[in-house]
Amino acid sequence: QLTALMEPLHAADIADLLEQISAFDRGQLIRLYDREFDGEILSELDESIREEVISQLAPQVLAEAVRDLESDDVVDLLEDLEEPQQEAILNTLEDADRVAVEQSLSYPENSAGRLMQREVVMAPDHWTVGQAIDFMRESDHLPDQFYHVVLVDPRLHPVGNVTLGRIMSSKREVPLGDIVEETFQIIPADQDEEDVAYAFNQYHLISAPVVDDEGRLVGVITMDDAMVVLDEEHEEDILRLAGVGEGSLADRVMATTKQRFPWLAVNLATAILASLVIAQFEATIAEFVALAVLMPIVASMGGNAGTQSLTVAVRALATRDLTGSNVWRVIRREVLVGLVNGLAFALIMGVVGILWFGSPLLGVVIAVAMVINLVVAGLAGTVVPIILEKIGVDPALASGAFVTTVTDIVGFFAFLGLAGAMLL
Amino acid sequence: QLTALMEPLHAADIADLLEQISAFDRGQLIRLYDREFDGEILSELDESIREEVISQLAPQVLAEAVRDLESDDVVDLLEDLEEPQQEAILNTLEDADRVAVEQSLSYPENSAGRLMQREVVMAPDHWTVGQAIDFMRESDHLPDQFYHVVLVDPRLHPVGNVTLGRIMSSKREVPLGDIVEETFQIIPADQDEEDVAYAFNQYHLISAPVVDDEGRLVGVITMDDAMVVLDEEHEEDILRLAGVGEGSLADRVMATTKQRFPWLAVNLATAILASLVIAQFEATIAEFVALAVLMPIVASMGGNAGTQSLTVAVRALATRDLTGSNVWRVIRREVLVGLVNGLAFALIMGVVGILWFGSPLLGVVIAVAMVINLVVAGLAGTVVPIILEKIGVDPALASGAFVTTVTDIVGFFAFLGLAGAMLL
Ligand SMILES: [Mg+2]
Ligand SMILES: [Mg+2]
Ligand SMILES: [Mg+2]
Ligand SMILES: [Mg+2]
Ligand SMILES: [Mg+2]
Ligand SMILES: [Mg+2]
Ligand SMILES: [Mg+2]
Ligand SMILES: [Mg+2]
Ligand SMILES: [Mg+2]
Ligand SMILES: [Mg+2]
Ligand SMILES: [Mg+2]
Ligand SMILES: [Mg+2]
Ligand SMILES: [Mg+2]
Repeated sequence: QLTALMEPLHAADIADLLEQISAFDRGQLIRLYDREFDGEILSELDESIREEVISQLAPQVLAEAVRDLESDDVVDLLEDLEEPQQEAILNTLEDADRVAVEQSLSYPENSAGRLMQREVVMAPDHWTVGQAIDFMRESDHLPDQFYHVVLVDPRLHPVGNVTLGRIMSSKREVPLGDIVEETFQIIPADQDEEDVAYAFNQYHLISAPVVDDEGRLVGVITMDDAMVVLDEEHEEDILRLAGVGEGSLADRVMATTKQRFPWLAVNLATAILASLVIAQFEATIAEFVALAVLMPIVASMGGNAGTQSLTVAVRALATRDLTGSNVWRVIRREVLVGLVNGLAFALIMGVVGILWFGSPLLGVVIAVAMVINLVVAGLAGTVVPIILEKIGVDPALASGAFVTTVTDIVGFFAFLGLAGAMLL
Repeated sequence: QLTALMEPLHAADIADLLEQISAFDRGQLIRLYDREFDGEILSELDESIREEVISQLAPQVLAEAVRDLESDDVVDLLEDLEEPQQEAILNTLEDADRVAVEQSLSYPENSAGRLMQREVVMAPDHWTVGQAIDFMRESDHLPDQFYHVVLVDPRLHPVGNVTLGRIMSSKREVPLGDIVEETFQIIPADQDEEDVAYAFNQYHLISAPVVDDEGRLVGVITMDDAMVVLDEEHEEDILRLAGVGEGSLADRVMATTKQRFPWLAVNLATAILASLVIAQFEATIAEFVALAVLMPIVASMGGNAGTQSLTVAVRALATRDLTGSNVWRVIRREVLVGLVNGLAFALIMGVVGILWFGSPLLGVVIAVAMVINLVVAGLAGTVVPIILEKIGVDPALASGAFVTTVTDIVGFFAFLGLAGAMLL
């Protein structure tokens, strides 16, 4: 009955289902569903619960499940497992597959070498369409999914990609070299997967050959796997911008608490720094309590404007739209945007200050502080991510803390300092 | 010389170059490069400057450029143009292409119908591999890029997808129906492109048939176009979470200022609300100025913890990982995480409060306020996005304002209220 229910579901949907139920239900379900457990489900599962699920499968079920996977999916499965579990799975593979997987694992984590599949269809670059068709139709070990024939020279260096579609629509005597795709990107096996995803997205690649140190073809990356990386990189940036470390919805309370704590601790330190600024003006505040009422507004507006600027800058760096050729124009624009919005909100808050507290001088103070803080927000929000990128720190990770520290401190200092000078 | 420099560049890179230089340089470059202007460059250009570039091209150059594009790229180009420019381009197309493009444009914006290409390779579902190969090799109008043959029944309803790779590796007499892909998704032309991108990413599709109201095949969407949508949806979410509307790095100062203003205005309103809470406690603050120094800390910690929770919730809703089956478990987890982190930071701040101001009572007040605010942050950060999604508002767009308002108000109220009760 359970099998009848699960049968029509795609492995990715079954994986989602397993992720969403509680750990207890998951254990129950796996025990019942054990016999037909598909390897695809394992590769779709979130890494946070994959190990748990694998440890609950009977060894022969696991072996059976892994045997059906393409080499890239086996690598993805193995790389996050502990040594003994890894060994156990590797031992169930046929010798050739095992060697392929071990070679992939020899490339660094998050590299193209880990992402590629070893199953490649290649042809000598002097072949014709007819030869390629005959070769493919006679070969009985073609990969499950392939979209190109990779042309290689005698030293196995890839020299071009021909789509199956072009082969289908060309005459038998046409040389393959004449119908290669215009866009051809060769990917070094040690390239970072982030750059791989960028290339696929930028050049609309469907698959691309991967080469070793000597430029020899060792595998191919397909777009579906590049799309997964693109998706993960985005996810990582969003979560880092919000100060949430890697983590998953399936994590337990203590694991999640530990992920969130560091960022909150950094925020506490910066908040205390800002409080030290306020403490310098205790006497001023004691005189005019209205200042305590209004001061969070200036800091909060600066924080928000800074977050806007830094998010735009972090994204533009990630998509490589912010480069040496437009960096000064972008900085100038952000500062001017801060100035214009600062003037607009200065006017609004000046009026509010006068109406609320009946003090034109207070209105002027908050207005000037607002302009200063929004200009600083635009500047810091752009310059901080750029500098972090330059020194090799992920700007998505650290920009927020720096920028809001700046806007808090400048906000409180400008507002309270001006108030002290003008009102006392 | 310019041509020699640009020749080896991919259209996407030329587009990026045009985006990054100033409007003046762009005009100059286009005038010089005019003769070889490729349609691909136009489709790669960011929408914000596409219209500007199109208006600078000579009509015959534009016509030439558009003629080489696939129907989906022409649609993408036309949909954002003004009526007269649209007409002008449509008139340069051949009749058949024009009809295809106009039909695509009749589907709603951001729908699958706009995303699909009309160029499809289909075959009757009773054909064999041999028949399909003969058909393709004899046809002289195959699309530039295709990866599947779509099987259709006599009413033109798609019933399966066969990859070219499977066709290549199967015997001539094998019925196509026997080698269809296991994963087969039919996409209604009026489906939102966001759901299309989800399906491609979830099921690792390479291409998928699109059908009209009556279920008839009208086009096909390929993964490269789905990847662009996925990328844009992510970008949109990141920018919305930061309170930045649609916009691009190439926008001018005033356009950018207008995009950023609304969110800052919302933030100003919520900041004033928080100030009104502080104003209730003016007397308390006048008595203990230390409260003014410490109160931003509690609010800031709550804001950050709330942002963490809401970002996780917004992402989980977007990836469909947060559903009816785990919503209560996730809410409970976020509240507990808030409680545990709240207790940790309560301890830290309690000690800081005592050491800094020498008042154990002040330490207790800030500690209790911290626990309250972090628990509320976890609760609001999860519940607000879920409710917004339920009532059809994009949670990425509006959650931030609501959640930080809650944490500001609760933070100030808890801290100052407790202080008033315990210290006076
Ligand atoms: Mg999933
Ligand atoms: Mg996969
Ligand atoms: Mg992995
Ligand atoms: Mg990475
Ligand atoms: Mg692009
Ligand atoms: Mg793969
Ligand atoms: Mg990154
Ligand atoms: Mg671009
Ligand atoms: Mg395109
Ligand atoms: Mg469009
Ligand atoms: Mg959308
Ligand atoms: Mg296309
Ligand atoms: Mg969205």
